[in-house]
Amino acid sequence: MKNIIIASTSTIHGSGYLEYILDELKSFFKHTDDILFIPFARPGGISHDEYTKKANEAFSKIGKKARGIHEFENPIEALKNAKGIFTGGGNTFVLVTQLYKFNLIEPLKDVIQNGTPYLGTSAGSNICGLTINTTNDMPIVYPPSFKTLGLVPFNINPHYLDPEPNSKHMGETRETRIQEFHAFNSPPVVGLREGSWLQVKDESIVLKGSLSARIFEYNKSPYEVESNTELNTLK
Amino acid sequence: MKNIIIASTSTIHGSGYLEYILDELKSFFKHTDDILFIPFARPGGISHDEYTKKANEAFSKIGKKARGIHEFENPIEALKNAKGIFTGGGNTFVLVTQLYKFNLIEPLKDVIQNGTPYLGTSAGSNICGLTINTTNDMPIVYPPSFKTLGLVPFNINPHYLDPEPNSKHMGETRETRIQEFHAFNSPPVVGLREGSWLQVKDESIVLKGSLSARIFEYNKSPYEVESNTELNTLK
Repeated sequence: MKNIIIASTSTIHGSGYLEYILDELKSFFKHTDDILFIPFARPGGISHDEYTKKANEAFSKIGKKARGIHEFENPIEALKNAKGIFTGGGNTFVLVTQLYKFNLIEPLKDVIQNGTPYLGTSAGSNICGLTINTTNDMPIVYPPSFKTLGLVPFNINPHYLDPEPNSKHMGETRETRIQEFHAFNSPPVVGLREGSWLQVKDESIVLKGSLSARIFEYNKSPYEVESNTELNTLK
Repeated sequence: MKNIIIASTSTIHGSGYLEYILDELKSFFKHTDDILFIPFARPGGISHDEYTKKANEAFSKIGKKARGIHEFENPIEALKNAKGIFTGGGNTFVLVTQLYKFNLIEPLKDVIQNGTPYLGTSAGSNICGLTINTTNDMPIVYPPSFKTLGLVPFNINPHYLDPEPNSKHMGETRETRIQEFHAFNSPPVVGLREGSWLQVKDESIVLKGSLSARIFEYNKSPYEVESNTELNTLK
């Protein structure tokens, strides 16, 4: 029984950390006030302690307390005992490298598949897909593998960004990048705009938030799906 | 005796492929009309043949002919015999994976260090640095290593992009990404704006083009250097 929120971002423009989704999280984590926080993605290079403090500032608004997994002597036991887990954004390569270093990939997958509610934002969402081949992050460290949790049968592209028609920059658009991914890989990619999330309940995967998402399937033209669309047929 | 052009981009807005730098290339490749082209980065997933045709369309304007390294039975011999080499842009991860697959990293480094003129644009420039840890590309394939040619004692960030003050997108700015790189690595990073290039002649490394470049050193605030600045003290 999976119970997962895969969110494009932690923060939308003009709003505080997790603020846009706090009401949802209050109900999502209704069975526990203690959240195990995975701070490994270290946005801006901040420390695990600083990042945990930031998560706590948001969670305290809904009466929850986050404790960083780095505070536990045995992180695998911490995962097994957790009643709710949150992995924050930052750098996906750093996050994945740490998860492999502490042998946490399989235990994390196991507890989520067994029903522990899991919230990911940005990098924490990327790892819910098959691989990090469609992250937007800079590869600042070399992880032992790009394979991740595979909790959904496709890849995530968080912070999905439409091409800017007036841009004079010649770097690739997001759409071009994902199409290049499909020159070498066949899994679908879900481009999640900021403010959108996927609500995964067992085998159901539903797009939430007010925006549409952009879907990229191998050998097909990209297309939009509206909020509340069921995406469990994508594979 | 190194003789290298490390260009931010192949194409600037409103201009054809390599057009902004063709005059420079005419003199750079003055000792040969035959250019060995490395098409492995496959922009947009195009084939090696298509990409080589595109390079030829530009080189024909200055009386040069590009031949793709994929056309040679022995690519290492092709590198050794080349009188001029060009590696085009596209996806840096794809490029590096292919270079490792065909064992070309060391031979390519050797011939460039021995004086074969080398032009890189974008991904082809990224590999001139120590690693691809500061590429902007999507990691669509998993290379055996992020280490590259180390022809200059720092990393390159091509297509360097200033933060957009009015952006409502919450993805990291380029500056934030490079600062995250420095949370885990100490080499300097040269942010090369589109239209800029580094001219490397033996131990001299000079910024060319009309724009300034942004330099990121470990534990220092980023700063600008003007065109024609000598950068060989960066390390």
